Amino acid sequence: MTEPTSARTTAETAEDAIEDTEAAETLQRLRGSIDNIDAALVYLLAERFRATKQVGRLKAEHGMPASDPAREEQQLARLRSLAIDAELDPEFAQKWFTFVVAEVIRHHVEAAEDR
Amino acid sequence: MTEPTSARTTAETAEDAIEDTEAAETLQRLRGSIDNIDAALVYLLAERFRATKQVGRLKAEHGMPASDPAREEQQLARLRSLAIDAELDPEFAQKWFTFVVAEVIRHHVEAAEDR
Repeated sequence: MTEPTSARTTAETAEDAIEDTEAAETLQRLRGSIDNIDAALVYLLAERFRATKQVGRLKAEHGMPASDPAREEQQLARLRSLAIDAELDPEFAQKWFTFVVAEVIRHHVEAAEDR
Repeated sequence: MTEPTSARTTAETAEDAIEDTEAAETLQRLRGSIDNIDAALVYLLAERFRATKQVGRLKAEHGMPASDPAREEQQLARLRSLAIDAELDPEFAQKWFTFVVAEVIRHHVEAAEDR
């Protein structure tokens, strides 16, 4: 005969195993969604850089400055507001935007220097 | 009578003015596209964080580590390949991904600490 404690342990272990399998399945499903979203983000970022590269060329051709603080301030305020609406941390949205804009300005400066 | 040089200068100035107006219109059009893309990016980032927050909770509940280097390596390789396909600088895609993942891991660690 199996000891009651031992039987209980086996049942608990089986339950834990089921729970772990469910957790693994949920993790896989969520990771699939993250991968889909990441692909969409990469293609959108590519499209954004196509547009900013055109802006960079235009600015270089017309001798406009690479950065435009007033425009960036407007963009930042708008993105923070959109982030709140989307339930995304506005501080993260701001850090993210600053990161992307730094890369854009680097491209603009390069475009101006290449002329 | 106007001096030929002066007339030429006036014509050139008029041409320059038309060119500048066209450039300003193009800039406005491109900025409109960038703003649309940014709104889409913010909503997608929000959706990504919803998914990673669920992953964070799941990992905290099951005592899984907050970061998963093998998974991150796979994601990075895939994103670099997608970036090349989308004509986005893969170095930028990598920097961007590292930036986003750092924020996600910060959330996961917080989720684990809150338990």
